[in-house]
Amino acid sequence: MAAMPGLEPALAARLKRDADGLVAAVAQQYDTGEVLMLAWMDDEALHRTLETGLATYWSRSRRGHWVKGETSGHWQRVREVRLDCDGDALLLKVDQQGPACHTGARSCFDDGLVTAESEAAS
Amino acid sequence: MAAMPGLEPALAARLKRDADGLVAAVAQQYDTGEVLMLAWMDDEALHRTLETGLATYWSRSRRGHWVKGETSGHWQRVREVRLDCDGDALLLKVDQQGPACHTGARSCFDDGLVTAESEAAS
Repeated sequence: MAAMPGLEPALAARLKRDADGLVAAVAQQYDTGEVLMLAWMDDEALHRTLETGLATYWSRSRRGHWVKGETSGHWQRVREVRLDCDGDALLLKVDQQGPACHTGARSCFDDGLVTAESEAAS
Repeated sequence: MAAMPGLEPALAARLKRDADGLVAAVAQQYDTGEVLMLAWMDDEALHRTLETGLATYWSRSRRGHWVKGETSGHWQRVREVRLDCDGDALLLKVDQQGPACHTGARSCFDDGLVTAESEAAS
């Protein structure tokens, strides 16, 4: 059977896109629970992700689609996709090959500690 | 000592805000790793979160700040805040009191399964 030409209408109707037609997508390592990165998807990126099983995003800076890992080999094989209650965020449970971050860190949040518990309380 | 008038300049300089002055914020239960919700922060929301230790967001629909739990009692006590490598997303490790979702679900993603592994591959 040929691939659908686009995102399933029932799913497309559940998305609440921003002014640029995007929803936020959080990638989480499916077994450890580690949050790896946050990126963006338009309808087509979500469609391709579901069709191929490889996380595909929309780059806001490059204004184009990108398959995570297509240049680095650090693919995200998608195990599960969930949409949040108000339709503007996706959670992708993935199996991340190698580091998720372009810096070589496992997660894009690894090197960005702003504050730990003792500092957070005033 | 009086509270700072706003976000620390060195931190503010690391934020890459969208056209509305916002960054995405992912809330994750600190011990289980469960992704609870995605919301939005401006500088002031992040400042208040760091000052009070309670997750405080910007509501895009209501155009105002809200302390998570201020009406429901379902506070998010913040254990750790991390900024991602390109400065447009925050990861909050929190201790979520009760359900995170306004529907009563523990996570805003609980009821939104789009596809599981067997369906994700074409």
